Amino acid sequence: MVTAQSLKIPPKLIRILKIRVTDKPGYLGKMATTIGELGGNIGEISIANQGPDYLTREVSLQLKDEKHLSDVLEGLAHVEGIEVESVTDPVQAVHEGGKIGMKSRVRLDSLAAMGRVYTPGVAQICRLIERDSSMSRHYTSIPNTVAVVTNGTAILGLGNIGPVAGMPVMEGKAVIFEQMVGISAIPILIESTETNVVVQTVKNIASTFGAIQLEDIAAPQCFEIEQQLQNDLNIPVLHDDQHATAVVVLGVLLTIAKRIDLKLSACRVGVIGLGAAGFGISRLLRAFGVKELVGTDIRPDAIKRFEVLGGRASDLQGVMGLADVVIATTGVPGLIKPEYVRRGQTILALSNPDPEIDPDLAKASGARFAADGRTINNALAFPGLFKGALTAGATRFTEVMQIAAAVAIAGQTKADNLVPSILDPEAHAAVASAVAFAWKSS
Amino acid sequence: MVTAQSLKIPPKLIRILKIRVTDKPGYLGKMATTIGELGGNIGEISIANQGPDYLTREVSLQLKDEKHLSDVLEGLAHVEGIEVESVTDPVQAVHEGGKIGMKSRVRLDSLAAMGRVYTPGVAQICRLIERDSSMSRHYTSIPNTVAVVTNGTAILGLGNIGPVAGMPVMEGKAVIFEQMVGISAIPILIESTETNVVVQTVKNIASTFGAIQLEDIAAPQCFEIEQQLQNDLNIPVLHDDQHATAVVVLGVLLTIAKRIDLKLSACRVGVIGLGAAGFGISRLLRAFGVKELVGTDIRPDAIKRFEVLGGRASDLQGVMGLADVVIATTGVPGLIKPEYVRRGQTILALSNPDPEIDPDLAKASGARFAADGRTINNALAFPGLFKGALTAGATRFTEVMQIAAAVAIAGQTKADNLVPSILDPEAHAAVASAVAFAWKSS
Repeated sequence: MVTAQSLKIPPKLIRILKIRVTDKPGYLGKMATTIGELGGNIGEISIANQGPDYLTREVSLQLKDEKHLSDVLEGLAHVEGIEVESVTDPVQAVHEGGKIGMKSRVRLDSLAAMGRVYTPGVAQICRLIERDSSMSRHYTSIPNTVAVVTNGTAILGLGNIGPVAGMPVMEGKAVIFEQMVGISAIPILIESTETNVVVQTVKNIASTFGAIQLEDIAAPQCFEIEQQLQNDLNIPVLHDDQHATAVVVLGVLLTIAKRIDLKLSACRVGVIGLGAAGFGISRLLRAFGVKELVGTDIRPDAIKRFEVLGGRASDLQGVMGLADVVIATTGVPGLIKPEYVRRGQTILALSNPDPEIDPDLAKASGARFAADGRTINNALAFPGLFKGALTAGATRFTEVMQIAAAVAIAGQTKADNLVPSILDPEAHAAVASAVAFAWKSS
Repeated sequence: MVTAQSLKIPPKLIRILKIRVTDKPGYLGKMATTIGELGGNIGEISIANQGPDYLTREVSLQLKDEKHLSDVLEGLAHVEGIEVESVTDPVQAVHEGGKIGMKSRVRLDSLAAMGRVYTPGVAQICRLIERDSSMSRHYTSIPNTVAVVTNGTAILGLGNIGPVAGMPVMEGKAVIFEQMVGISAIPILIESTETNVVVQTVKNIASTFGAIQLEDIAAPQCFEIEQQLQNDLNIPVLHDDQHATAVVVLGVLLTIAKRIDLKLSACRVGVIGLGAAGFGISRLLRAFGVKELVGTDIRPDAIKRFEVLGGRASDLQGVMGLADVVIATTGVPGLIKPEYVRRGQTILALSNPDPEIDPDLAKASGARFAADGRTINNALAFPGLFKGALTAGATRFTEVMQIAAAVAIAGQTKADNLVPSILDPEAHAAVASAVAFAWKSS
């Protein structure tokens, strides 16, 4: 079987080493020191097995590449009292067989149960819905189900790798939906890069779902697909990369503004990179009340869209020279040179894994506040956005709902963090109820 | 809220009565006698609560209609020592909130887990699949996922009630898939009655799934949709109403043939009603080796299709006069008059809930063997058919696979039953392994 190893794919390796360590003081230290000296980054350590005079520990390691792994294994082989029993890839292990599955909410443990769930009982529910279609809200899974739709044109930072190669991301979204807010998310892969085909296909199957999440679809197609679908469908449609990202960014800006006493709507905001994320951020900031937006992109159509929104086009140095707050989403590491930074600026350099400017360098160059994209994860926003919309029976996502979500995220941010923990169910619940309230009261 | 009651929909009511019964000998008997005298059919009885001198029992009742329920409640009100506490509809209860949901197979209980399931870890799996698409069989849910596709044109015996009203049936299928063979089934509702739209929509999303189950799509459209999809897709496509029904019928015929010592392929078989089920049965019998098929239908296009298959067209009396084995799937109760029955015939009158001829009447009129459709449930066939095809990595369903499934069903039939229990996991597993073996060895 072909494996990640043989294809030498991952730029960063995560591996679990099962290591038998002599159960006496000092041996764990020797192990950790050896790994540390060889540049291995130790994560979690758990005990897998206890022997008479040894412990088997599972050690999670982050490594640069296969060569680095070999070096660490070689190093450990020379340490007395320590033996590496196995090396496994936890990412591959967690993906084996896929990460999701459709599950029954009822048990078929008797013929009576079969008769209620399936024929003949089910006919009564079908007829109920036939006569009054709103009954589908009570008696089917539709109002709690979101289609996670992609055509694979912009998967993570990997680009147009096709929908099937994007499936692990769609399944990841479904895992987050289910674990965080109990929504049933169904990946839908569409084998087409034509706007019209994507729109028509989703419309044809839309009655299966309570809402549509568009995912990892490249700009500029994503704008038109979202708009056409929302115009033609009576359920909420959201392009995650535009709006969920924008909500988290606005939430972060609100937190920063509170901390350094800034009036966001009075700031001149610069946006570097006007793709799906950059444009989504611009649009939401505009809706929030930001009057002056200045932006730049290498694509003329992106500039055109930005100007229609009321933004002012400039170039990189122009944006840096004019803006109080700078948000960069270009995917170009190191794009912002230290000499471009203006004293007192707030800079969010969001490209992942390597930002447009290192936050420490930005601060050393005069920025009042700087952060990179590690904490700006749209998974903070999308579960609550959809949960709120579905709960409220919303027919679309409004800008007010998105602003409410951002305010809720800022409100849930604890201590000196920039965002709440992505694993905090209270944060997701707060976003959901803010979104539902915003729909109902507007 | 509109309810089944207020719409007076169900032709047959199922209700759970919570009844407080004095805990002394004789009172349960009084309750059961009263219900029985009023024509109520008692199913399961369980104990919900135990008081100091009474038991609260939950009694499942089948009733004719709302009036019948009132009569039973009125009757029970006059019995001393018995009190009806509540009446609930168990079918509605089991459908509340829908019967299925997408569930995560992994827990998000740490940031490390998040990093494996979602970014950054997931990128490694995406790249693996990008370079070698067959990796999606190992690392996604696709190869264990079946789309259950309907456009709602022939839901149960209810006709063209639309896809959303058919959703409870699709969810029922998904429950059966998951509970019986562990397959993840995703309902897909298509809002179109145009063959081309249905075909194109399924093709556009087909890479999401390991197989396609077409469900409750009316004839003649179902034939063309299935054929076009199977021609254009490289995964198994099966129209349940044609093929799963045919498999169960062939299984039943094999069981009967063994019991009354009949050589099925040498019989002249008559098929009355050549819709999806009747045509599917004809085709499978032909593949099994039945040389002489005689059939009838009121639709000329159905007759034409049957003749292309090598069947001989006749009329109702002609079929009854010629055939050794008669299979009726017309939906017309009482269509077969006792005087049409030939001595020694085997008759399967499959229309539900009321057959073309009552089996007892058929036997009294000279039939050697007769049965109705209560036991011919395609849920006996479809879980194993799909499980076998997915396990074997089949790209289509062949007739050999369908015959193997029928033989397995006959082989699993115990004692003097016609079919195995639909809840018997061994029966489903036997069908699945027969189907997988048939694909691999042909």
